[in-house]
Amino acid sequence: MSFNTFGRLLRVTTWGESHGPAIGCVVDGVPPRIALSEADIQPYLDKRRPGQSRYTTQRQEADQVKILSGVFEGQTTGTPIALMIENTDQRSRDYSDIKDQYRPGHADLTYDKKYGIRDYRGGGRSSARETAMRVAAGAIARKILPAGIRIQAGLVQMGPHMVDPANVDFAHTGDNPFFCPDPKAAKAWGPYLDAARKDGNSFGGIVTVEAHGVPAGWGAPIYAKLDADLAGALMSINAAKGVEIGDGMGTGGLTGVDNADEMVPGNAGDIQFLSNHAGGILGGISSGQPIVARVAIKPTSSILTPRRSVTSGGEAVEVVTKGRHDPCVAIRGVPVVEAVTALVLADHYLMHRAQCGE
Amino acid sequence: MSFNTFGRLLRVTTWGESHGPAIGCVVDGVPPRIALSEADIQPYLDKRRPGQSRYTTQRQEADQVKILSGVFEGQTTGTPIALMIENTDQRSRDYSDIKDQYRPGHADLTYDKKYGIRDYRGGGRSSARETAMRVAAGAIARKILPAGIRIQAGLVQMGPHMVDPANVDFAHTGDNPFFCPDPKAAKAWGPYLDAARKDGNSFGGIVTVEAHGVPAGWGAPIYAKLDADLAGALMSINAAKGVEIGDGMGTGGLTGVDNADEMVPGNAGDIQFLSNHAGGILGGISSGQPIVARVAIKPTSSILTPRRSVTSGGEAVEVVTKGRHDPCVAIRGVPVVEAVTALVLADHYLMHRAQCGE
Amino acid sequence: MSFNTFGRLLRVTTWGESHGPAIGCVVDGVPPRIALSEADIQPYLDKRRPGQSRYTTQRQEADQVKILSGVFEGQTTGTPIALMIENTDQRSRDYSDIKDQYRPGHADLTYDKKYGIRDYRGGGRSSARETAMRVAAGAIARKILPAGIRIQAGLVQMGPHMVDPANVDFAHTGDNPFFCPDPKAAKAWGPYLDAARKDGNSFGGIVTVEAHGVPAGWGAPIYAKLDADLAGALMSINAAKGVEIGDGMGTGGLTGVDNADEMVPGNAGDIQFLSNHAGGILGGISSGQPIVARVAIKPTSSILTPRRSVTSGGEAVEVVTKGRHDPCVAIRGVPVVEAVTALVLADHYLMHRAQCGE
Amino acid sequence: MSFNTFGRLLRVTTWGESHGPAIGCVVDGVPPRIALSEADIQPYLDKRRPGQSRYTTQRQEADQVKILSGVFEGQTTGTPIALMIENTDQRSRDYSDIKDQYRPGHADLTYDKKYGIRDYRGGGRSSARETAMRVAAGAIARKILPAGIRIQAGLVQMGPHMVDPANVDFAHTGDNPFFCPDPKAAKAWGPYLDAARKDGNSFGGIVTVEAHGVPAGWGAPIYAKLDADLAGALMSINAAKGVEIGDGMGTGGLTGVDNADEMVPGNAGDIQFLSNHAGGILGGISSGQPIVARVAIKPTSSILTPRRSVTSGGEAVEVVTKGRHDPCVAIRGVPVVEAVTALVLADHYLMHRAQCGE
Repeated sequence: MSFNTFGRLLRVTTWGESHGPAIGCVVDGVPPRIALSEADIQPYLDKRRPGQSRYTTQRQEADQVKILSGVFEGQTTGTPIALMIENTDQRSRDYSDIKDQYRPGHADLTYDKKYGIRDYRGGGRSSARETAMRVAAGAIARKILPAGIRIQAGLVQMGPHMVDPANVDFAHTGDNPFFCPDPKAAKAWGPYLDAARKDGNSFGGIVTVEAHGVPAGWGAPIYAKLDADLAGALMSINAAKGVEIGDGMGTGGLTGVDNADEMVPGNAGDIQFLSNHAGGILGGISSGQPIVARVAIKPTSSILTPRRSVTSGGEAVEVVTKGRHDPCVAIRGVPVVEAVTALVLADHYLMHRAQCGE
Repeated sequence: MSFNTFGRLLRVTTWGESHGPAIGCVVDGVPPRIALSEADIQPYLDKRRPGQSRYTTQRQEADQVKILSGVFEGQTTGTPIALMIENTDQRSRDYSDIKDQYRPGHADLTYDKKYGIRDYRGGGRSSARETAMRVAAGAIARKILPAGIRIQAGLVQMGPHMVDPANVDFAHTGDNPFFCPDPKAAKAWGPYLDAARKDGNSFGGIVTVEAHGVPAGWGAPIYAKLDADLAGALMSINAAKGVEIGDGMGTGGLTGVDNADEMVPGNAGDIQFLSNHAGGILGGISSGQPIVARVAIKPTSSILTPRRSVTSGGEAVEVVTKGRHDPCVAIRGVPVVEAVTALVLADHYLMHRAQCGE
Repeated sequence: MSFNTFGRLLRVTTWGESHGPAIGCVVDGVPPRIALSEADIQPYLDKRRPGQSRYTTQRQEADQVKILSGVFEGQTTGTPIALMIENTDQRSRDYSDIKDQYRPGHADLTYDKKYGIRDYRGGGRSSARETAMRVAAGAIARKILPAGIRIQAGLVQMGPHMVDPANVDFAHTGDNPFFCPDPKAAKAWGPYLDAARKDGNSFGGIVTVEAHGVPAGWGAPIYAKLDADLAGALMSINAAKGVEIGDGMGTGGLTGVDNADEMVPGNAGDIQFLSNHAGGILGGISSGQPIVARVAIKPTSSILTPRRSVTSGGEAVEVVTKGRHDPCVAIRGVPVVEAVTALVLADHYLMHRAQCGE
Repeated sequence: MSFNTFGRLLRVTTWGESHGPAIGCVVDGVPPRIALSEADIQPYLDKRRPGQSRYTTQRQEADQVKILSGVFEGQTTGTPIALMIENTDQRSRDYSDIKDQYRPGHADLTYDKKYGIRDYRGGGRSSARETAMRVAAGAIARKILPAGIRIQAGLVQMGPHMVDPANVDFAHTGDNPFFCPDPKAAKAWGPYLDAARKDGNSFGGIVTVEAHGVPAGWGAPIYAKLDADLAGALMSINAAKGVEIGDGMGTGGLTGVDNADEMVPGNAGDIQFLSNHAGGILGGISSGQPIVARVAIKPTSSILTPRRSVTSGGEAVEVVTKGRHDPCVAIRGVPVVEAVTALVLADHYLMHRAQCGE
């Protein structure tokens, strides 16, 4: 069972390979009469687009999105929205060198074992290029969400280099080529990454995402918990290896006294939390606090340093992955994490409305 | 949209509240002609059962499972298997003290905000009691899986106390009341936990699970990745706040050179991996290596130390949660993590068979 | 893939065999704060209950439903509602005579071919007894639907005997043991059915269902059309062999001029239709007219007249089905058709609210 | 909730409007290593293509399908297959005349009531043009099905003119422009249809489909019955109003003695049925007999005879639908019914393999 559809009520089905003629998606379940044009989507794609700084892959893709259906006279009609991006820079280079090699950290081996066939050009379906469609769909999800919800992500760790949590200010993620929310840290990261790349190496990273303005009550027991759906969705991003909600793995080391997010009456009859260890989700349902999640993205597996591997024929081989690769894929993962978070939230918004009304 | 069904082809629907007459589940999609009786399920429930040591809740539940359908003359028939456990120790105590209180860390507030009503007795639907049915269903999942697959979990961290990874030996998890895979560490944990409890406090913990013998090829791009499904399922466990596959959050700090799981030809025409940073999953598909995941379980929120909160009427209140609570819920989370892992794997086994045959 | 769950947002999972200890279902996705008790469900079960007249099976089942979860202090909580009916009249007779026989018209052969095992006692899972849970769930669905929606079904054909459409008045379905909406026709049906039964024979029938008060706008293109979902759901009822919406099969014989449901402006700014060939559904979406569907139920396959068949071992055999059987299962199908219609409508009500708000 | 995805394991998501730039679909879940190219799909589209005789719409669409993903070096890869057909003959005529009119029998009114917006050009999403993608996907489904399964449909009734069942021979459906399995009847149909068209009228029709070679055992209780899935899928075809399995609505008039499909031992240890009232499905599972279904397609609603209606503003209006319309849409429905049947069968083939192995 292949499964390329994301979501329950807001459903995104993506298709396409790195080196096919195009990639695309179908976004189904969008409420009607939302103003929508390519101009609402393109800015998010541009953030994710490769080739914008020397810290991301030099593949040149315009990533121009086209809306093929579901929008009429500038508004969504409630019918499926098809989006497509043509692949324009599928370099017609010779892939015969990697055709039979199982590159460590890549899906070459596993696709072969599963399907007995794989499109080896640029990773085929397992290419991070697929995430462009999540970003496009995420732009639509943002328009579905009620006004006042703000989703922001940033790179808070690049390899061994972490941002001091006290310095995080998402207003700065646009100021530097790393989507880093700490401008001072960002300044130091450039040389680190240059050095890694020159070394034929790459860095992992950690992306933090926050959603402010989500009302209390979204989510559901037991198997559509907001945190469970977020975890599944974020872990489905290429190269993701860990997901945390609130204090995440750190809660394993806490005591109950420390972990309790105490509450006091607010001024306006509301509830004020004194901390947010829970990351805004209790029992699978949003509490009204900011939703906070973190995603670990492993280092780019395509590196110039030779690594031992085997061929599909079982021969030993040294793999050196040339080509245009991100030295830290976590950077371009930032807009993807934002988009996926928007998709999960919009889905849960519709789910909540279905069961509980407005 | 409430959603109490887990899985794609092997589907488990659970129901029941902590203090209702019973809890139960329906397991649909089980292949026919598998030998099955209550005796296959009960031992797993007994592992999770409360009241077995002084380190878990003293609630006394026999947790006797009954099979109500789907089994005929000792074999599964391919039709839905209904399981039920009667609640025998719903203490008829007065819940009026917590009826209107939002206990920090619990789902009281969020259920109320979502539904405008909640069964406050023992946490109602949000009680960890629901996980008994996952354990029961997990026992069936194990029987579906091909022979040779071994799923083992253990508690590797209890609050600030971690097990040295070098000492982990899952053969020892049955030797101590913590399901700890390091018997020496386990010995020290008793006094730590006693002290925390006397203090009116509790501990979080981290559970590691490993699945050996899973063949290469299970899983699927893009939104039914084995790791994404695992992450979503494990995060749906009560009190889970973080999920890691392989090196997990740590991969954010690695370089590509270090993270590469190199391969060499094995003796039998197979492939030998030299490391397992990936946790046995590449591109969402199993690689043939052991599948390794970790789950952080937050500390029990029900503690005797007073914490500030508010009532449903908006009044300030100090919450002290009396009653029979686990000082470290992560302990009883171990069989739950095992069961959930078995369910995800069995589901993917059937999914793989559907698309790719046997 | 077994699949015992019905619905998209309002999901009913049924379980149980004719001669197991009990049958039951889990109703998930019910909105919170709906007043609900067994007394809301039991009357519908009583309508379907066997043994109420000499025209239905003499099996004596109290069919007392119990609510096991999801209701607190008389109101739904938004969590799954488990219902159970104990089987009290599983006559412990010897089934060895039919154990190896493939009764014509029954699922004996097909279950055996699919699963290689079957619970032959009373048809096991393929027994019409399963429909009791649809009736129970349908009672909940009725409470979910907005006030003013009225769902009524009646038996309009019993074997060769049809009701004159001009005489149909659903107010009369409760006056006779056939749920026949024409009291005059009903009077004649008793002797017909008695004669068939004495003959060792049985009758098929056709059930008409109408839903009044459904607002325009429920349903969806393309694969969740209201009529497509109705057709699938009604065809899933035991013994159903045909489903019609509006003029149904007859539309194949119409011309476009005759089939057009003309509209004129109503007095209150609304739209008045001059006919309802469409059965209240256009393009998969309700038009505001009454929704009209018809279901053909084949004659009871269990008859005393010997029929040729084979055994599981491939031997020729003459099958005579003794026991307590309905001479016309379509009669007791009437409350089932009503219930299934209510379930489909309630599901679409929630689906519409999810996408389009209220 | 919009829902444009068909199927459980073999999932087809369609998109596109009649007068948008293109229509397309994504076919997910296809097994790997099936030889596939556009040449496998195009012949089926050509059968459905408009403008091929004077008995179908004169819209000229080449309906050239392109495969955009999921196929590599001539074989399916197991990843989603995106198909697209560009709309080349969207006549840029003025639609202002029908923009505000609710054409009787069309989805104009209901889309407007549901969404508050609609793409009125050529029916938008509700256009029968969508069925082109079902035909395309159906061609892939045929390649998934095991060899030896033969799916054939034909038009057996056109308005009041029925084919004598004794004359049905599917070998003749390609000999005439009506896909009529009785060449003699077909000869008479031309003048009938010409007369209807000249009259500003149209005809309904009934399509019969048969699937030979389906093994016993496909299907499932209770809500994924093969007949229930077929009924839902066939009823989702534009203009379908009735679906029958086997004797269909006629079973309501039968007696149990007549309806019994008696069995005798075959020569090769198999089972010989003496009749097929059941249409090859018992208890929701295939019996090994030919699967037989019938679908009623209502007459084309777009006719030149004026019909009364209202505008979106509530004014009375006479609607005359000019343009290029099929005088009997049931004709081009024949390849659609075949395709949908192939999709349902292929889905159930994979479902059976998932639960029961091969």
